[in-house]
Amino acid sequence: MPPPPLHRHLLILRSQTLTPLLRRNPSCDPPLCRPRRCLSARASAAQVAAAGVATAQQPELGMEEAVVGFVTGKRKATEVAHAVWRSIVRKGDTVVDATCGNGNDTLALLKMVADERGQGRVYGMDIQDSAIESTSSFLKMAVNDDHQRELVNLFPICHSRLEEIVPKDVPVRLVAFNLGYLPGGDKTLITVPRTTELALQAASRILSSGGLISVLVYIGHPGGRDELDVVESFASSLPIDTWANCKLQMVNRPIAPVLILLNKK
Amino acid sequence: MPPPPLHRHLLILRSQTLTPLLRRNPSCDPPLCRPRRCLSARASAAQVAAAGVATAQQPELGMEEAVVGFVTGKRKATEVAHAVWRSIVRKGDTVVDATCGNGNDTLALLKMVADERGQGRVYGMDIQDSAIESTSSFLKMAVNDDHQRELVNLFPICHSRLEEIVPKDVPVRLVAFNLGYLPGGDKTLITVPRTTELALQAASRILSSGGLISVLVYIGHPGGRDELDVVESFASSLPIDTWANCKLQMVNRPIAPVLILLNKK
Repeated sequence: MPPPPLHRHLLILRSQTLTPLLRRNPSCDPPLCRPRRCLSARASAAQVAAAGVATAQQPELGMEEAVVGFVTGKRKATEVAHAVWRSIVRKGDTVVDATCGNGNDTLALLKMVADERGQGRVYGMDIQDSAIESTSSFLKMAVNDDHQRELVNLFPICHSRLEEIVPKDVPVRLVAFNLGYLPGGDKTLITVPRTTELALQAASRILSSGGLISVLVYIGHPGGRDELDVVESFASSLPIDTWANCKLQMVNRPIAPVLILLNKK
Repeated sequence: MPPPPLHRHLLILRSQTLTPLLRRNPSCDPPLCRPRRCLSARASAAQVAAAGVATAQQPELGMEEAVVGFVTGKRKATEVAHAVWRSIVRKGDTVVDATCGNGNDTLALLKMVADERGQGRVYGMDIQDSAIESTSSFLKMAVNDDHQRELVNLFPICHSRLEEIVPKDVPVRLVAFNLGYLPGGDKTLITVPRTTELALQAASRILSSGGLISVLVYIGHPGGRDELDVVESFASSLPIDTWANCKLQMVNRPIAPVLILLNKK
């Protein structure tokens, strides 16, 4: 199947363009790849705050605060992930948000890559149209600079198809996944092992040396542990000479999300 | 059994004093509690460097460098542990090195608690006499200040008996464990699940609110995974309202040591 046309500098590649392709992709047929549901099609100030994105009033969380906060039960795994991303991602980089959801990670990534020369890029995707719309709405509210927002390219496609939207000749520094249901959302709308495995394989191919695949796996729903098994199995299978893969998780909170980080050496 | 007499400000409580008590403690009888072997009874400059303790030439590793280094396969779990300890331990604190081994952690802890008023304390123990001697020798080489060295109290006893050497009325900020064999040492001389479980229970009792139990579990030897199971089981059993327990491990290095951190809220 040929890749869909790339639309750089276009904030949203409307679903009408890609949905037909999506429907023809057997690997993404329901129920193998049910869409994650976005929390809301409307961004709110509370969402901006909850996203943990730095504002004038709320500075970015440093690594020490994030890690010690996680160890002491005061910070979430996603805050550790963002702190790690900030240490690895540079201005001008190309990154991928493979599961946009409500756009929190998309915005965090945009802040990391956006530079004055307009070289940074965020490729975002989610199989559900409303998630893409929610992310777009969120970005419009959270990012005043039009040029900066244009660094984001959103696609309503399954995460397993990420190679189709990222230009082949561009080194990718980071691919971020949030797997499972969205916290506060409908737990029956989830990512699933089959397409997640394909997505991880694709991410490992497009990632540049020194880059990171970041996978936050929510496991507090039916099927969540199966998906964690797939991610762990994939991570375990990568050779130690070219990959450093680690896992961070709570031990006495059985349904707490698990953070798995895969670094391509 | 009454606790042995406490010898504060005494660098080494000689093994002759405690060995008879130790032999009478059924929980520490061989083979349940075989001693960990120290690498060498003589400290060396290389060991000081390998300990990762800050010197004029070698600054302390920050949290960001430790965590990103671990994620990228360039730093060890023990370096992450030390960075977390530095964020939690304060000058003047009382801490415990439950498995001195060759003294690296003992020295790192001493540097964290030693203050000019002489209030910090490190209680160190190891069931093997030669490990205590090695730690003492290492401290003599690495710490020029006699008064600072006197903040360390070393005991040749099993880690399961840590309550016997730490004064009851003193809040303990951190208890550190290095479980298994010592890297480079004899893999047949290991800590074992039964006494490790007792030691963790004791550590959880003496730890003050806000304190940390840090457990680095080496698993690349027969019995290593059994001991990891015991530590994980203990960590999982602690209630979430009073404990935040997390785990950090490599995923594609099956025998890499696992770091488990238990924070008492």
